[in-house]
Amino acid sequence: MKESVIHVYERPELRDPVFIEGLPGIGLVGKLAAEHLIQELNAVKFADLYSPHFMHQVLIKKNSVVELMKNEFYYWKNPDENGRDIIIITGDQQVPPTDSPGHFEVVGKMLDFVNEFGVREIITMGGYQVPELQGEPRVLAAVTHEELVEYYQRKLEGCSVDVIWREDEGGAIVGAAGLLLGMGKLRSMYGVSLLGESLGYIVDAKAAKSVLLAVTKILGLELDMTALEERAKETEEILRKVQEMQRAMLEQQMPPAPEEEDRGYL
Amino acid sequence: MKESVIHVYERPELRDPVFIEGLPGIGLVGKLAAEHLIQELNAVKFADLYSPHFMHQVLIKKNSVVELMKNEFYYWKNPDENGRDIIIITGDQQVPPTDSPGHFEVVGKMLDFVNEFGVREIITMGGYQVPELQGEPRVLAAVTHEELVEYYQRKLEGCSVDVIWREDEGGAIVGAAGLLLGMGKLRSMYGVSLLGESLGYIVDAKAAKSVLLAVTKILGLELDMTALEERAKETEEILRKVQEMQRAMLEQQMPPAPEEEDRGYL
Amino acid sequence: MKESVIHVYERPELRDPVFIEGLPGIGLVGKLAAEHLIQELNAVKFADLYSPHFMHQVLIKKNSVVELMKNEFYYWKNPDENGRDIIIITGDQQVPPTDSPGHFEVVGKMLDFVNEFGVREIITMGGYQVPELQGEPRVLAAVTHEELVEYYQRKLEGCSVDVIWREDEGGAIVGAAGLLLGMGKLRSMYGVSLLGESLGYIVDAKAAKSVLLAVTKILGLELDMTALEERAKETEEILRKVQEMQRAMLEQQMPPAPEEEDRGYL
Amino acid sequence: MKESVIHVYERPELRDPVFIEGLPGIGLVGKLAAEHLIQELNAVKFADLYSPHFMHQVLIKKNSVVELMKNEFYYWKNPDENGRDIIIITGDQQVPPTDSPGHFEVVGKMLDFVNEFGVREIITMGGYQVPELQGEPRVLAAVTHEELVEYYQRKLEGCSVDVIWREDEGGAIVGAAGLLLGMGKLRSMYGVSLLGESLGYIVDAKAAKSVLLAVTKILGLELDMTALEERAKETEEILRKVQEMQRAMLEQQMPPAPEEEDRGYL
Repeated sequence: MKESVIHVYERPELRDPVFIEGLPGIGLVGKLAAEHLIQELNAVKFADLYSPHFMHQVLIKKNSVVELMKNEFYYWKNPDENGRDIIIITGDQQVPPTDSPGHFEVVGKMLDFVNEFGVREIITMGGYQVPELQGEPRVLAAVTHEELVEYYQRKLEGCSVDVIWREDEGGAIVGAAGLLLGMGKLRSMYGVSLLGESLGYIVDAKAAKSVLLAVTKILGLELDMTALEERAKETEEILRKVQEMQRAMLEQQMPPAPEEEDRGYL
Repeated sequence: MKESVIHVYERPELRDPVFIEGLPGIGLVGKLAAEHLIQELNAVKFADLYSPHFMHQVLIKKNSVVELMKNEFYYWKNPDENGRDIIIITGDQQVPPTDSPGHFEVVGKMLDFVNEFGVREIITMGGYQVPELQGEPRVLAAVTHEELVEYYQRKLEGCSVDVIWREDEGGAIVGAAGLLLGMGKLRSMYGVSLLGESLGYIVDAKAAKSVLLAVTKILGLELDMTALEERAKETEEILRKVQEMQRAMLEQQMPPAPEEEDRGYL
Repeated sequence: MKESVIHVYERPELRDPVFIEGLPGIGLVGKLAAEHLIQELNAVKFADLYSPHFMHQVLIKKNSVVELMKNEFYYWKNPDENGRDIIIITGDQQVPPTDSPGHFEVVGKMLDFVNEFGVREIITMGGYQVPELQGEPRVLAAVTHEELVEYYQRKLEGCSVDVIWREDEGGAIVGAAGLLLGMGKLRSMYGVSLLGESLGYIVDAKAAKSVLLAVTKILGLELDMTALEERAKETEEILRKVQEMQRAMLEQQMPPAPEEEDRGYL
Repeated sequence: MKESVIHVYERPELRDPVFIEGLPGIGLVGKLAAEHLIQELNAVKFADLYSPHFMHQVLIKKNSVVELMKNEFYYWKNPDENGRDIIIITGDQQVPPTDSPGHFEVVGKMLDFVNEFGVREIITMGGYQVPELQGEPRVLAAVTHEELVEYYQRKLEGCSVDVIWREDEGGAIVGAAGLLLGMGKLRSMYGVSLLGESLGYIVDAKAAKSVLLAVTKILGLELDMTALEERAKETEEILRKVQEMQRAMLEQQMPPAPEEEDRGYL
């Protein structure tokens, strides 16, 4: 296997499909969001991407069956005839950071493939590492073209999540969430990256929920968030316990202040 | 040498050959098992695989003769006309873990080559690292397709070794033992991986013997295990001495318990 | 993206253009010099170079717009009809040192590209790391062909900067500043490398100014250095403060000498 | 530059030329030997090898002239009409150990090139690291084919240097000195590797002399060793001083023994 290869099981006719990416990364935010979307939409798998740039191993799945590391393509056909269809990609891994050229090669293969189905718009999902969190995770947005800021802001009006746009330059988006937009731009595609604030060290279903709320608002989809919300509650519980532990540790170091209220943050 | 290359010395006609892999790895289990199989069957070498992904050196063999690092292909023709033939691969090294794409390239070349001889079934052999061992090493099995679990379990009925099949997913098989199955699946091949439990830090002939007992049961072969058993006895002796040393060290740390029996394990 | 790729927006007719390189490196000297040159000449961007050997990320620019890492080509047409034109390259990064072959590939693409516009002469700009500095940074020069030493020395007569030429061999020029000359020589091009002495750990506008004074002398250009001089003054102020801090530290370690004058150097 | 490339300045007609390699390695033994041979034979340079697998830099040579890292091919025509000619390769570096495939690629290019001139026999020269040395460095020999042991032993009869041949397998020859033989074998070439014992941390002209005495014996050449012997004397002087320092350090640690003689070794 000299290059990444895509095994195609079906070639559905798709209507102006939007390509949504959710691969493993910070807090597994993108992957959780993609898996929930696939589950709720009953999206159908239609292709597997294998790559010599993935780890040289097989995973042991249920019942002792082995599989190479891979990324998976799913499609969803909008029941509304005038609506747009969706292609979602998720999977076992991204190319490791030690193999930059391999990362470009894999993302190039993804874009060439979804281009065959008429994809023009790309939405990438992931986590954005922050040192502390207060309340619901916000979503940081970035686009391929400046005119899209207003476009997506209009689409996001009324969204229950805080979507942040920055004026000053600074920072980077590493991996597929960034490369898909950067390389997509060179193929005349366009799109937006939505990264949920995350502490990074936990499986962050809260951040995934925030990101998915923004995505579904943009696409005009109604999505049952229950399963993700349950995972999110587990996440909140873990965060709360960590917060208590931290406070207890601090109190051992400092004299207690009178009436120290629960600030509700880490 | 831009790609791995196979030098073919002979092109035997083989009957539905099974491809058995035993390359260097944990405890050298796979390699020991393959070398013993080759020796007992008097298998004939018919090809060498060289690769730019192997170490950039030559080994000094007997009588000051140098050789590039390589993998070797052997064949065995079944004296039973209705029986199946065997191709075995063993060798000096696998591709190092720092060169994942190189690993895929080499395994791809192996599969393309054995495909020319009609190989459809693959059996990979290796070690499975465990922190401690009790009694005979068990063999962990994994397959390319779910329906093969039952198939191999039937073939293994009566095997003197414990072959373990797992229901839950988890873990991975790194290197050729895994890649041959994962990539073989993409070439419409099928097979099983048999990994013998091993502590990993010794040349583990006991684990090699366990694996080979499972392999020969599957293939319906009778194999004289004497040479391997002698190596296995040496292994047991080493293990026993290590165990005594460990017990002595523990006793220095704890008060001795009355009548401490020899539990026979590390 | 398997190879580096250049997106060309315009193909200007250029007259015997000299190719000037100023990419990120020691003290950012080359990049600062190139950016100032582009700004003062009002050079026009006409191509972008993208590469799978650059970092696998996008940068977040103003207004949340993302861009792949890239190098940029600018041209300037000399208002004097008998004068020579200029192509300048600057950008976000060079290929990281862990990917030597990638560095050769990218520089090869740059040379092939500028060759299409008739480039024969190359001037590379960068920093040269020194442990301490006294007064204005000098500029170390090196050429592709021995006969060019005298040629550039004549061109530099009267230059306000000290340009140093060495007789003894020793040292190396790492990265694009060196490779462009070395590989350019193989394409029958010629040129000079001008490296400004720099402590390396600061954004060194003083060194950039020294290098640009040498470049403009060679090209017979008048350049307004004000903006760079202002940055250079900031650099001097930083250097002076570091010097004071160092002197204070030394005094704490040694008994003070009577009448210790300000030697004005680090 | 995607592949290594050889710039050829002349294509001499050579008579059954032997290819002698002396590239940088342990103790710089091979390179010193090659450079001395080139100097004494007045060998003529006829080709340069450049490679993207060499370091991404240029070296600064005399008079500020820069050059890419390279390997150089020299030829010598034997004044004896029935004698054999010689091709020698030496240079700035070998491919670094982190780039194994690159090493194979470069050596492959070397072999393809010298094959064009009818090379069949290869002699590689280098250092063999030992922890201590006594007297003159011996030379360890290894060959491509078993029948060559006797062949080279006969050629070496009367050689003033101790050439060692081993019966047991073990060890490896890393880099070009090994790869040229291993890969040469696959191209139906044959040859011998001659490695001089060296402590490794000094520029070892003594070991280079030992190796060259063996090479010239094999080729039936008379070579003036004066220049190398002078360098060798410098090496001996350094070794003797190191030995004195070591003895002094040991004496400080142990009570002095009566009448401790000069054992003359490290």
